[in-house]
Amino acid sequence: MTMRRREPAPVAHANTRVEGYRCVRAASEALAAPLSAEDCALQSMPDASPVKWHLAHTSWFFETFVLSPHARGYAPLDPTYRMLFNSYYNSVGDQYPRPERGMLSRPSLYDVLAYRAHVDAAMRELLANEVPTELLAVIALGLHHEQQHQELLLTDVKHLLARNPLRPQYTPGWPLTTVTPRHANWIAFEGGLDEIGHSGDAFSFDNEGPRHRAYVAAFKLASLPVTNGEYAAFIDDGGYHRPEFWLSAGWDEVQRQQWDAPLYWSRRDRQFRTFTLHGEAEIDPHAPVTHISYFEADAYARWVGARLPTEYEWELAARGVPQAGNFVESGALHPLALRDAAPSNIPAQMFGDVWEWTQSAYLPYPGYRVADGAIGEYNGKFMSGQMVLRGGSCVTPHSHIRETYRNFFPPAARWQFSGLRLALDG
Amino acid sequence: MTMRRREPAPVAHANTRVEGYRCVRAASEALAAPLSAEDCALQSMPDASPVKWHLAHTSWFFETFVLSPHARGYAPLDPTYRMLFNSYYNSVGDQYPRPERGMLSRPSLYDVLAYRAHVDAAMRELLANEVPTELLAVIALGLHHEQQHQELLLTDVKHLLARNPLRPQYTPGWPLTTVTPRHANWIAFEGGLDEIGHSGDAFSFDNEGPRHRAYVAAFKLASLPVTNGEYAAFIDDGGYHRPEFWLSAGWDEVQRQQWDAPLYWSRRDRQFRTFTLHGEAEIDPHAPVTHISYFEADAYARWVGARLPTEYEWELAARGVPQAGNFVESGALHPLALRDAAPSNIPAQMFGDVWEWTQSAYLPYPGYRVADGAIGEYNGKFMSGQMVLRGGSCVTPHSHIRETYRNFFPPAARWQFSGLRLALDG
Amino acid sequence: MTMRRREPAPVAHANTRVEGYRCVRAASEALAAPLSAEDCALQSMPDASPVKWHLAHTSWFFETFVLSPHARGYAPLDPTYRMLFNSYYNSVGDQYPRPERGMLSRPSLYDVLAYRAHVDAAMRELLANEVPTELLAVIALGLHHEQQHQELLLTDVKHLLARNPLRPQYTPGWPLTTVTPRHANWIAFEGGLDEIGHSGDAFSFDNEGPRHRAYVAAFKLASLPVTNGEYAAFIDDGGYHRPEFWLSAGWDEVQRQQWDAPLYWSRRDRQFRTFTLHGEAEIDPHAPVTHISYFEADAYARWVGARLPTEYEWELAARGVPQAGNFVESGALHPLALRDAAPSNIPAQMFGDVWEWTQSAYLPYPGYRVADGAIGEYNGKFMSGQMVLRGGSCVTPHSHIRETYRNFFPPAARWQFSGLRLALDG
Amino acid sequence: MTMRRREPAPVAHANTRVEGYRCVRAASEALAAPLSAEDCALQSMPDASPVKWHLAHTSWFFETFVLSPHARGYAPLDPTYRMLFNSYYNSVGDQYPRPERGMLSRPSLYDVLAYRAHVDAAMRELLANEVPTELLAVIALGLHHEQQHQELLLTDVKHLLARNPLRPQYTPGWPLTTVTPRHANWIAFEGGLDEIGHSGDAFSFDNEGPRHRAYVAAFKLASLPVTNGEYAAFIDDGGYHRPEFWLSAGWDEVQRQQWDAPLYWSRRDRQFRTFTLHGEAEIDPHAPVTHISYFEADAYARWVGARLPTEYEWELAARGVPQAGNFVESGALHPLALRDAAPSNIPAQMFGDVWEWTQSAYLPYPGYRVADGAIGEYNGKFMSGQMVLRGGSCVTPHSHIRETYRNFFPPAARWQFSGLRLALDG
Repeated sequence: MTMRRREPAPVAHANTRVEGYRCVRAASEALAAPLSAEDCALQSMPDASPVKWHLAHTSWFFETFVLSPHARGYAPLDPTYRMLFNSYYNSVGDQYPRPERGMLSRPSLYDVLAYRAHVDAAMRELLANEVPTELLAVIALGLHHEQQHQELLLTDVKHLLARNPLRPQYTPGWPLTTVTPRHANWIAFEGGLDEIGHSGDAFSFDNEGPRHRAYVAAFKLASLPVTNGEYAAFIDDGGYHRPEFWLSAGWDEVQRQQWDAPLYWSRRDRQFRTFTLHGEAEIDPHAPVTHISYFEADAYARWVGARLPTEYEWELAARGVPQAGNFVESGALHPLALRDAAPSNIPAQMFGDVWEWTQSAYLPYPGYRVADGAIGEYNGKFMSGQMVLRGGSCVTPHSHIRETYRNFFPPAARWQFSGLRLALDG
Repeated sequence: MTMRRREPAPVAHANTRVEGYRCVRAASEALAAPLSAEDCALQSMPDASPVKWHLAHTSWFFETFVLSPHARGYAPLDPTYRMLFNSYYNSVGDQYPRPERGMLSRPSLYDVLAYRAHVDAAMRELLANEVPTELLAVIALGLHHEQQHQELLLTDVKHLLARNPLRPQYTPGWPLTTVTPRHANWIAFEGGLDEIGHSGDAFSFDNEGPRHRAYVAAFKLASLPVTNGEYAAFIDDGGYHRPEFWLSAGWDEVQRQQWDAPLYWSRRDRQFRTFTLHGEAEIDPHAPVTHISYFEADAYARWVGARLPTEYEWELAARGVPQAGNFVESGALHPLALRDAAPSNIPAQMFGDVWEWTQSAYLPYPGYRVADGAIGEYNGKFMSGQMVLRGGSCVTPHSHIRETYRNFFPPAARWQFSGLRLALDG
Repeated sequence: MTMRRREPAPVAHANTRVEGYRCVRAASEALAAPLSAEDCALQSMPDASPVKWHLAHTSWFFETFVLSPHARGYAPLDPTYRMLFNSYYNSVGDQYPRPERGMLSRPSLYDVLAYRAHVDAAMRELLANEVPTELLAVIALGLHHEQQHQELLLTDVKHLLARNPLRPQYTPGWPLTTVTPRHANWIAFEGGLDEIGHSGDAFSFDNEGPRHRAYVAAFKLASLPVTNGEYAAFIDDGGYHRPEFWLSAGWDEVQRQQWDAPLYWSRRDRQFRTFTLHGEAEIDPHAPVTHISYFEADAYARWVGARLPTEYEWELAARGVPQAGNFVESGALHPLALRDAAPSNIPAQMFGDVWEWTQSAYLPYPGYRVADGAIGEYNGKFMSGQMVLRGGSCVTPHSHIRETYRNFFPPAARWQFSGLRLALDG
Repeated sequence: MTMRRREPAPVAHANTRVEGYRCVRAASEALAAPLSAEDCALQSMPDASPVKWHLAHTSWFFETFVLSPHARGYAPLDPTYRMLFNSYYNSVGDQYPRPERGMLSRPSLYDVLAYRAHVDAAMRELLANEVPTELLAVIALGLHHEQQHQELLLTDVKHLLARNPLRPQYTPGWPLTTVTPRHANWIAFEGGLDEIGHSGDAFSFDNEGPRHRAYVAAFKLASLPVTNGEYAAFIDDGGYHRPEFWLSAGWDEVQRQQWDAPLYWSRRDRQFRTFTLHGEAEIDPHAPVTHISYFEADAYARWVGARLPTEYEWELAARGVPQAGNFVESGALHPLALRDAAPSNIPAQMFGDVWEWTQSAYLPYPGYRVADGAIGEYNGKFMSGQMVLRGGSCVTPHSHIRETYRNFFPPAARWQFSGLRLALDG
């Protein structure tokens, strides 16, 4: 991938660069700290990867795209790693099969941490000197890439722990505070010819551009995401047993996987409970619903008589909204109910808490071109069969998100912190 | 589904109505005529249906949506058929499982033809009298529905016959005429804010509307579809073995299904041959390539350095182009090379020959609402995981196609007469 | 395969030989006569074959092993048939894949009957002249082979018709007569050193020999097979929900296939019904239970506190018992209750009605050697993973069965007319 | 299961009992000692279990069948373990699904070792006092059960390590000594009426009895197992590409799994190499071939013109042969070539090195009855679909094996140390 523009290299001193690198890298290791070597080695499904793999692959990125080509005298720690921790870069060479990532007891977690240290030492040295602008852009990409994997590390280990009948906690629970329930209202947006996509000097992924003109008709957007309580009413109304609300492919999944509630939900004594990174908990009816597929989000919206927003509508509505919210740094690691009163004409919780499914397929923006070489495999080749989500979640690093950020997952995926916000024609 | 507007009912005399109905119905039976009862009973894959099933299901449509609710005293021929020939209408009730349609030796082809006669007799009687406008709209839908199945009948039986080592012909071969090869040129279209989708009184499917404003940037479109000869060069250049041209999901399919050429192609003595409805034949290098998936179309376009058009671009380019072409009525039942010189500023072969993959996901147009009841299941619930194709093919009935017509198939589907036309940013 | 000894060739006049051939061949066509071309073309599961295929494959046997090598000037009707109708003879060449046999609408049933006529004409000519003894043995094998396929033709078409929601009949129902219920008693057999297996001049399959010494301990055998009524008590006692009665592999099948009664049974108003070749019928509590797997037979026996007999025990008990019974010629095509009083010291219904599962794995007898060439593939290569059944069924030709006859099916197979008879240690 | 007779309880002092228990238990932990927590947590296929699971399950056996019912005041360490480490005992209750055993990062290896200590402390206390004879029999069973799992622990972790592209060693390599090649000769055994199966006071599994009379015809047995060099000749003669040597089910496996050599073999520069518990090594042409399925053993024997022995033949030939050999205690952990000259009239390497496939299906001996209760699930319910192997292997504890010992695996299993010895009719 290539950045639309580059990091403002001139003002970045070596110290700043090193510190920025150190911060992001340390955050990954901090997320793995509560886990044992065994927790870090297992893979709960082909879509998820072992924690250990995330720690290694993010280092592989710097080794492969920065150090090996650009750091004089750099020697890889182990030549096998080039294949072992290559995720999907055909132009780099062979890849160890994704569904088998959980078959590797070696290298151990200890070995992987040593690999990280090896890469970090070389990176520190490289960053201490003059770095060409193009290479700084690749490093910036590597750090944003690592932040993506920080989020996946948490969603993947949650999926693993949730399968364990011992119901282990990732970390002890959070202090639940009482909240005054807020109710969503509709906020109207005028349509018109506008511009969509990233522009400017700051970092963005290539799939966020090019910025382009688009006509968007008038629409209304809910001021809040849909809550657990609202979603439970859909379940109680037979939502999972009434095909009229579902896309055909969604109804097939409901049958095939026997879905009857969001992922991780269970019912005990007529009370819904859910598995969280702090262990089992009652669901909070005022918190945003999460761990639902696109199909469930879409079915819920039809049940209400509304629809999902397009990603263009979402981006227009998010423009100018402060990017505050419940991100990974809060330590909640779960969506929370809105605590404070919010102005009724600005959508709340647009950032953090839950990724919001849009009704837009993940496709290239007009004028998008895939970059040459391995970096070109970063985003473009996944533009098929996936839907766009916007806004970040409770396990996204705060500095990672933007109003133009396009996340994407297949419509049946549920293990991400995915939720929804309703829209209506204007 | 609902029509945007209805057929111009006032001017349709009973005779015209009966004749229109008779024509479409007779065409289905004519397509089945070259086939034996055994040919009509078998199902070659879950995506395809037996010919017999197509003949029955199209009758079921009229029985279920027209006769049973609206024809006084109408008695279904067999009550089991309501379930047996229900394709996917959950609101009508249970459905016989799609992958099992080829497990039914009874009702026989003879029984199914008797079922058609039973329905036709009742329909003739109904049409001979005054028919309310709303019901006329449902009947029109039923006839367009039957035309869709006429096309599927041919693509499905082709798939069945192609699996047979005896290489049977559906009908004897066509006289091949020599053609003067034409070469594609780029035609430039100005961008701007325009309107897309169906409007007016004539019939259309609900997914073709509502007509809505959209901004489309300037683009170029090839004057001709990609030919077999051009596609063979992609194969010879290792196209099926170079991941850099492929979407990730497409590359997975190439590996999994071991694709190395379009469906039905085989190689003998370094010469490509293909299976057609007239049996085995050499490929004509000047005829449009067909039986390729979206993934192959997309990979080919990248290899060339171009891209697929969006469905909006295609529709703008098709506006005003005469809807002549190689349709089912020609009897060729296979794409043909362009015979005549064509003006270089008007795209040729936009209609007929091959459905053209676009890079647009099949999604609702802004403002689209699913109709209530069973008819609402016609189109809307399939708006997930499919790509739009435009323009009709050599097995589409001529009167069935429109410039706003949106066909849709999953990106890995190859058994339709699907091809491609290249586009470029303007 | 080779016969232990050969047919008594010297006394077989040409007329007798031709008549014997004609009889068996005509019986196959008679079995197909109630069926339509569509009935004969479909394949309900990979284990079953289309009726048309049985008719063709049995002709292929004579063409391949008799006519092509031995009839001067014989020309195959169609060279493709050599591959198309080869079941599993690797030494003959390629085989059309078994699960795809239902994908062939051509050759038609009409073509297959023509193929039979073509083969029969050549066979009649060959048989009218002197035939070498070795060739007569192959022809005898071909006729017994055809009788095996007559049974399979019926069990396979039953499986197909049973999947059809129209519940078609193969032939109209049989007159049920009232019977005086008989109760099984134990018959004691002394053990000792004895001889097992076929000997003598008459035809037998190679797997029935060589006759060999074996020590069999004293045992008791039930005078009658287990009945539907007895088996229903097992179901009502929770037999399908209590793992303690089941082999581990059997319990896995119960879970996986959700078995809760014999194949074709259904329950309406607390009354068991079953699908028969005469359509749906109530079960007769006094008739032998059938369409059960080895696992179900074994579990039932454990529930009773008994066991299945070994094939050696069965053969010793059958020695000298008249080979009368309910075979295909009775037209019942379903197991029947014993009508007449039977002596209490001779096991009844040993022949006909239902194949009886034994607890013997299908393995070679001591001294067994596979014959050279294609005929050697007839029996020996299946000696893995199957259990022996004895005695023939209601769809076995009477002249086909012997006390030494070893039938074999995998332990989970249920579509044959398989039942059980209990045994005890002596 | 029940023992035929019990351990000679009267002479077993408490000290001896405690020491015997301690020895076996310590051996398990010693086998796990070279492995990391991660090595111990992973599961390479549903047939194999994580090392950690073996360590826990063998403790579960004592907790469930000895301590919970018989040790006053015993409290399980964790009530979840009853389900989590139940292998297949339906009568004990639910079982955690076998294919998911590798999904459990908790309990950790550390927790499992604590579980072992908890059980061992209670067992030591129990054994220090008077123990009823019946309970001693269950404890003896538990220790033999643990020895079985010691072997599985090694075969399972070998399968895991072999999948790892880093090719890790379980322990460093063994010193290879030169050997004088020995050649197998045939040893003739007279047939006759004899007795088969276990008798006497010493421990045996229930499936080894009852001892019973059987007639075995004269036979010949090879003096040595088949070697790697001999097996390589079969490969070089196209053995894996010639269906005439294979059982039908075996040929299917060859195609499906694309077998072309024993498991773990690879070819580099025309030289066969294999993966061992000491890492990659060249194959020793004089050592017994191993990691072959029953199908491969059977095909090899046919290629030679011989056959596999029955388990009765094997047992008669092993009678009186000293039970010395290459067992787990040698530390080789791999089959070795015979070092010393052996008398030509006594079969060598009958015990240790490789399990020898017999042509006997794993079925109950005449008179065998499954014991009541959970212990009855030990052996009997697996008597379906498996073949008997005899003699123990290089990873079997020496004290675990007997001439009457019946091991059993499905005919396609290859991850055990399985080989073959040839036989002929006498």
